[in-house]
Amino acid sequence: MAGERMAAEIAEQPAVLDSLVARRGDFADVAALIAARKPRFALLAARGSSDHAALYAKYLIEVLLQLPAGLVSPSTTTLYGARPDFTDVLYLSVSQSGGSPDLVAATEAARAQGALTVAVTNTPSSPLSDAAELSVDIKAGDELAVAATKTYSATLLSLYLLIDAVRGGSAEAVQGIGDLASTALAAPVEDAVERFRAIERVVTTGRGYSSATAAEAALKLAETSYLAARAYSGADLLHGPVAAVDEHTGVVAVTSRGHGGAALLDVVQTVCERGASVLAVGSAAQDTPADLRVAVPETAEEVAPVLEILPLQRLALGLSLVRGVDPDNPRGLHKVTRTV
Amino acid sequence: MAGERMAAEIAEQPAVLDSLVARRGDFADVAALIAARKPRFALLAARGSSDHAALYAKYLIEVLLQLPAGLVSPSTTTLYGARPDFTDVLYLSVSQSGGSPDLVAATEAARAQGALTVAVTNTPSSPLSDAAELSVDIKAGDELAVAATKTYSATLLSLYLLIDAVRGGSAEAVQGIGDLASTALAAPVEDAVERFRAIERVVTTGRGYSSATAAEAALKLAETSYLAARAYSGADLLHGPVAAVDEHTGVVAVTSRGHGGAALLDVVQTVCERGASVLAVGSAAQDTPADLRVAVPETAEEVAPVLEILPLQRLALGLSLVRGVDPDNPRGLHKVTRTV
Repeated sequence: MAGERMAAEIAEQPAVLDSLVARRGDFADVAALIAARKPRFALLAARGSSDHAALYAKYLIEVLLQLPAGLVSPSTTTLYGARPDFTDVLYLSVSQSGGSPDLVAATEAARAQGALTVAVTNTPSSPLSDAAELSVDIKAGDELAVAATKTYSATLLSLYLLIDAVRGGSAEAVQGIGDLASTALAAPVEDAVERFRAIERVVTTGRGYSSATAAEAALKLAETSYLAARAYSGADLLHGPVAAVDEHTGVVAVTSRGHGGAALLDVVQTVCERGASVLAVGSAAQDTPADLRVAVPETAEEVAPVLEILPLQRLALGLSLVRGVDPDNPRGLHKVTRTV
Repeated sequence: MAGERMAAEIAEQPAVLDSLVARRGDFADVAALIAARKPRFALLAARGSSDHAALYAKYLIEVLLQLPAGLVSPSTTTLYGARPDFTDVLYLSVSQSGGSPDLVAATEAARAQGALTVAVTNTPSSPLSDAAELSVDIKAGDELAVAATKTYSATLLSLYLLIDAVRGGSAEAVQGIGDLASTALAAPVEDAVERFRAIERVVTTGRGYSSATAAEAALKLAETSYLAARAYSGADLLHGPVAAVDEHTGVVAVTSRGHGGAALLDVVQTVCERGASVLAVGSAAQDTPADLRVAVPETAEEVAPVLEILPLQRLALGLSLVRGVDPDNPRGLHKVTRTV
């Protein structure tokens, strides 16, 4: 059946998330080693969905650990042979497969140049885990669908657990995350599927932590439904791309309670005025002037991305099916992409 | 006349670039102060077109200065109140207007936390220049068109001149850049305009330094021609979004001689096989299996983005005009976007 694998893996997420929280002690050793090294800067390297998880982690590191953090381009190392001094740098490499050769090479180079390298993967015996000094296993189980779903949410939660442990936290904000995920997955998305089925152009937007969700939602829609979907930070959207938003555009606004959601309100207002079909997703969805709203249970803002993506995965799956595409067999995609 | 301002400012670029090189001594003082402080880590903050210039600078800093560098999200400071320790950090804030309140606030916070802050703007008496410890004036003259053109190329060149001066370079790679820019601007884009006029969905792609050009080209197309245009690193494109590339898609592949262009060849091959209309732009355009090619004079690879964008600005202008849009008056855009 079309989309069977993706549907099954989406449904596994409450259990996957709960079991991650249950074994959060596994993150304690790596966290203690990171804390002991007292890194002064953090860099994150990733591609595809994992890059969106890295964007989320960047916010966590800056806000919760108060460390300057930035996303790197592996290609400065792999294409141009840059060998910066990475002393005092925490270098997090995120990849569900752990098999991207450029990420492996960039991680090896960072380690050789003095970084504390940490791999976050779903494949503990991968080349990336071998290349990094420390590694974290997200233990999401085999992911057979081409579109990453459970490995994405499990990566987010693993990064949260790791970073929370580095600051000596007790993972309070993610207690009961499995039940909350079940609630988020039960939210009806049928109206949104119906409204978006004939739309070819989708803009996703979020601010703060939720910008990671917007980026991942755009990728899911593009890779499963072949939509022209792209994500903008709410701030960047108003800088130019909003000109391309009109009554033929679908807008997915990720809006959770907290600073990010509050800062997105004027963006939602603007795209509504331009006649776009606007879907708000998140714990603050009800407070926005959107056409359609999908509510997600409220959590601490820094945990919201783990839940926000869930109905959006179901939207991507639903849209692909009504558009006659099998998301388990998208055109031209392979599970592991080998770039150098 | 529709597009008159944008056309005039595109045409000014050879003179603007030449005058920047002529007064490169102006960058020496700021560069000497940066070098003397021996930063260990670089962070870049920007939005919109300036964010693409910042992406270019990130490559320059990693490859030419061998410093770890990352792009920051101003909102960790402005929305979440993060106050990381910025000692030993070079914090570059890039904004043509120098007026974005979030960038100003983020720069003030970085300076207060110990960063060496440097503003790169076209408005030397701006709030951003006041907020930063040091500032660089790109002196592109008033930009009246809403779509940034000359301020973009002038920002790239200013960043090159600054970073080259920090490493003690003599700006050799940009000698004669004005003439090369004139040649790049004379390249015919009419065939590309004709081929892309009925296309609604465009993917732009590049690798290495040229990924900045791909990002900026997508923004120009979206804001002036209302196309659903988005940029992917060549590596990211093959990770998923390539599924959305088909015979209805236009692909702009930015390919210059060097490591980045070479690494993009398999991407161009893949999108050609998927039936997309592929336009290659750059000094290596002739070597790719694209449908259409726009050649740009060859330079050192690290300078190529200054020239690559020029025919793409003309493509955006040409497309907007044949599509009946006045790029000088895009819907819903203002020259300075005020986000918090």
